[in-house]
Amino acid sequence: MKLSIYLAGQIHDDWREQLKQKASEHQLDIEFTGPQENHDLSDDIGENILGKQPNQLYRDDQGASINNFRTSIMMNQADAVIALFGETYKQWNTAMDAGIALGLNKPLILVRPESLIHPLKELSNNATVTVENIDQAIEVLTYIYK
Amino acid sequence: MKLSIYLAGQIHDDWREQLKQKASEHQLDIEFTGPQENHDLSDDIGENILGKQPNQLYRDDQGASINNFRTSIMMNQADAVIALFGETYKQWNTAMDAGIALGLNKPLILVRPESLIHPLKELSNNATVTVENIDQAIEVLTYIYK
Amino acid sequence: MKLSIYLAGQIHDDWREQLKQKASEHQLDIEFTGPQENHDLSDDIGENILGKQPNQLYRDDQGASINNFRTSIMMNQADAVIALFGETYKQWNTAMDAGIALGLNKPLILVRPESLIHPLKELSNNATVTVENIDQAIEVLTYIYK
Amino acid sequence: MKLSIYLAGQIHDDWREQLKQKASEHQLDIEFTGPQENHDLSDDIGENILGKQPNQLYRDDQGASINNFRTSIMMNQADAVIALFGETYKQWNTAMDAGIALGLNKPLILVRPESLIHPLKELSNNATVTVENIDQAIEVLTYIYK
Amino acid sequence: MKLSIYLAGQIHDDWREQLKQKASEHQLDIEFTGPQENHDLSDDIGENILGKQPNQLYRDDQGASINNFRTSIMMNQADAVIALFGETYKQWNTAMDAGIALGLNKPLILVRPESLIHPLKELSNNATVTVENIDQAIEVLTYIYK
Amino acid sequence: MKLSIYLAGQIHDDWREQLKQKASEHQLDIEFTGPQENHDLSDDIGENILGKQPNQLYRDDQGASINNFRTSIMMNQADAVIALFGETYKQWNTAMDAGIALGLNKPLILVRPESLIHPLKELSNNATVTVENIDQAIEVLTYIYK
Amino acid sequence: MKLSIYLAGQIHDDWREQLKQKASEHQLDIEFTGPQENHDLSDDIGENILGKQPNQLYRDDQGASINNFRTSIMMNQADAVIALFGETYKQWNTAMDAGIALGLNKPLILVRPESLIHPLKELSNNATVTVENIDQAIEVLTYIYK
Amino acid sequence: MKLSIYLAGQIHDDWREQLKQKASEHQLDIEFTGPQENHDLSDDIGENILGKQPNQLYRDDQGASINNFRTSIMMNQADAVIALFGETYKQWNTAMDAGIALGLNKPLILVRPESLIHPLKELSNNATVTVENIDQAIEVLTYIYK
Repeated sequence: MKLSIYLAGQIHDDWREQLKQKASEHQLDIEFTGPQENHDLSDDIGENILGKQPNQLYRDDQGASINNFRTSIMMNQADAVIALFGETYKQWNTAMDAGIALGLNKPLILVRPESLIHPLKELSNNATVTVENIDQAIEVLTYIYK
Repeated sequence: MKLSIYLAGQIHDDWREQLKQKASEHQLDIEFTGPQENHDLSDDIGENILGKQPNQLYRDDQGASINNFRTSIMMNQADAVIALFGETYKQWNTAMDAGIALGLNKPLILVRPESLIHPLKELSNNATVTVENIDQAIEVLTYIYK
Repeated sequence: MKLSIYLAGQIHDDWREQLKQKASEHQLDIEFTGPQENHDLSDDIGENILGKQPNQLYRDDQGASINNFRTSIMMNQADAVIALFGETYKQWNTAMDAGIALGLNKPLILVRPESLIHPLKELSNNATVTVENIDQAIEVLTYIYK
Repeated sequence: MKLSIYLAGQIHDDWREQLKQKASEHQLDIEFTGPQENHDLSDDIGENILGKQPNQLYRDDQGASINNFRTSIMMNQADAVIALFGETYKQWNTAMDAGIALGLNKPLILVRPESLIHPLKELSNNATVTVENIDQAIEVLTYIYK
Repeated sequence: MKLSIYLAGQIHDDWREQLKQKASEHQLDIEFTGPQENHDLSDDIGENILGKQPNQLYRDDQGASINNFRTSIMMNQADAVIALFGETYKQWNTAMDAGIALGLNKPLILVRPESLIHPLKELSNNATVTVENIDQAIEVLTYIYK
Repeated sequence: MKLSIYLAGQIHDDWREQLKQKASEHQLDIEFTGPQENHDLSDDIGENILGKQPNQLYRDDQGASINNFRTSIMMNQADAVIALFGETYKQWNTAMDAGIALGLNKPLILVRPESLIHPLKELSNNATVTVENIDQAIEVLTYIYK
Repeated sequence: MKLSIYLAGQIHDDWREQLKQKASEHQLDIEFTGPQENHDLSDDIGENILGKQPNQLYRDDQGASINNFRTSIMMNQADAVIALFGETYKQWNTAMDAGIALGLNKPLILVRPESLIHPLKELSNNATVTVENIDQAIEVLTYIYK
Repeated sequence: MKLSIYLAGQIHDDWREQLKQKASEHQLDIEFTGPQENHDLSDDIGENILGKQPNQLYRDDQGASINNFRTSIMMNQADAVIALFGETYKQWNTAMDAGIALGLNKPLILVRPESLIHPLKELSNNATVTVENIDQAIEVLTYIYK
């Protein structure tokens, strides 16, 4: 069984690389996709392609349109979504992507630290599985193939 | 044309009452729904119904299950969703509800202050309309009936 | 907000009447539907309409086709489903109806006694809310309107 | 034509191995999936991954969340579902999975002994095909390729 | 529970009037819809509205487009479909309408005489219920409200 | 049978008023919706609500977002869509709205003059019915109720 | 572009072989599926697998259930459906399969002789393309790859 | 990640070849599909296959039916759609195809020159991304794989 899984969450550290590395060690037949992890590129992509915009609002909006096109294609192809939350950052894209996955009825793993139990309680309850770290997420993925 | 609109967002002030009041002044034929606005009740509802839980995690999870049941029924009936963000609070439920609305292909109005343009840029771009305050949201609703 | 809720579960006592009575006391604007509660009629309906069948298999199959037609119409109209399990009876129809509700993405309340936690654990986890008795189910329904 | 078929049913004997063996003998191009057949692993998986839970309810609920994630991915990929019932066990998961298949509009084969005709009559009537044993189920699968 | 039911089938006798009359006698809260029963009008409607067509093919195609618009609106609103077959006429529209109902996952009652068991066996098996006459169909509808 | 029909097309003359007047004369139980017919208001609505934009592109984009919100709500409620084309204007919104109706599987009437047969041939063939003027469209609507 | 096309229609001559042969000559990358063409096997399959049935009705119903399982899997995988009608046979399965294709929103080619224009006018108008013979159907398929 | 993208737009120059060439230079794993680019063939295909039609209306309608069959198969397989507008031609097919993509919820890139900002403002706002030329469209596609 070949799977595609979208990795929603912050792009400020290498958690996706760690997760892919572990999945590779377990020889899981999974293609991982996710948002643009080059933060500057993600912010600049609108003006990179469409040229200088008149203000910050439209600079952001144009970049977002291209990020959304990319995510939308990946999310549609995904068999499941993993959404990771940490203690830093607003992470509204992560929550939005998790919500889109719920609206599209895709199985969802939430990864969040114990400290975020209360503010993420409705999202956790809507998710199919909630774990606290990516090692546990990998164990869940490994269990699919057992 | 009779509409039902779900009002996603924080429950710490009376913005929904203000919005309903204005809608009523414009005689808009809209039924507004939204999350439980009594914060204590929203937090306690799990233990209120199911009794004392063994720890905070499960106290929160049980409350969330009942809040999710309530929201899910309302969201399914909604013709559109309004999601309001402010500068305080994590507001992950708001982002999740907006995401669910997108996944279900419901028209979405995002209300957010200018200061949140950057962190909400993908959500704003995915929304059907973005405005900065509830007066503008009411103007959009009024325009449906013009 | 007017709702329609399908009541899946055994038809050997008056739990639906109790639940409707309580809903009425709370003045909930809910139309309840459910399977044929006259057990003999439910078993006989195939032969009542189509005449004597050649054996028990086809007597049962014809009755089932008419019960399924009835349930299917009600389930399609339902905004939510309540599935009640007790310690007696096989209750495979209850589990099937709960599964259909899940497949159709309808919000689902599971009602089951503490003694059935283990055999119903996957169904409970898939349900939106799990409670132990119909008083608690009524409290959940009442909470929608609070 | 390559197919994927989910095998719902009890996990206390080797019926899936028998069925796969027969399918292999007929050289059917079918990938079979199904629930975790290691019963202890299926029961323990929640605490294995998430650690000791405060009581049996939550031990079961956590295990169920991971089983449901696994099943949900497999069911979404399935072209058809086979649900097998025997005379032992409660088999509510089997009935729920069959219901989910019906809700998702997937073709369904019910396998059940003659003794269960009456209690499974609505499920049998909703299924696409009903047979009494896995040899007959294999004959149905073989017929697809004839 | 208010229902809408589409009555597919031939338009050469008054079977729909009989059925509506019986439904009225049982005080069933059902709105019945169906194809244009004025045969000449049904055949002429294309040229009536669009003028003389160059040949029979296009005369028929234009009439059919208007009949299909009418049916499509009615079928989308229907909670269930009844398809009646008799021993005369080709009745391909009836079979097509029944197929559309199946594709849209609407509950379907097939009414057909005993003489047509063999040629309608796949349609009968796909239908939710099969009966032999409209009295039996009315009994099925009455059973919904019992 | 009460219907809602969305009237896509140019907003430079009173064709919708004529059509509604004729529908009223035939006492058709239809609620008609459509785009904002006050052209200046339609163009200005973005800046009216959101204030002066930095250039024409964003003035237009903001106005469009509010027009799209309005249309999306109306289209979702519509049982059918009428799309009218004339010899003047680009009418790309009309073609887009007709395409959205096709993608959502809504019955569609195309109204276009004989002179536009060739450029609208694929749209005409995809539509459920094609007529040449609103009198003919009214005859089609009247036929639903005959 | 690799396609799967379901060939609905009578099974009394070798039209499918002719069509496949021509498709092969044009090197079209299409997998064709269709109903069981061994007529006796198609009629006997129920009793072959499930044993002697009490009467003709149930012999037919059991055979039909297995034919429907087979067709349902093939139809779900199909990118398009071809439905062929001739002057002989009732061909209600063909009309039903065409209807299912319409309900599932699959592109549909109708093949019918000129003599059947009138009785198939609604089906023809609902189909995406209507042709008179399998040579023309092959030309339509070839055009996809041009 | 292998993608299929439908290229809607005029067929009077070689913009698709240019775009495919650039995609090939960037080694993007994308299969591009699109309408028949041989204009004469596209216009003649109806009469080529079905013979001389009685007038221009039906000559066009038959050709359109075959073009629509082709497009419908391609659009259903597409992960995304690119719709290109220029200053010449009516381009109603382009707008219709873009609308179908929106109705089917497929990610959409609009390519249009600055001069068409105003008449395409609603389509642009509904599209996921809007760019001004095919070089920019290629940059968006390239970004998916970064």
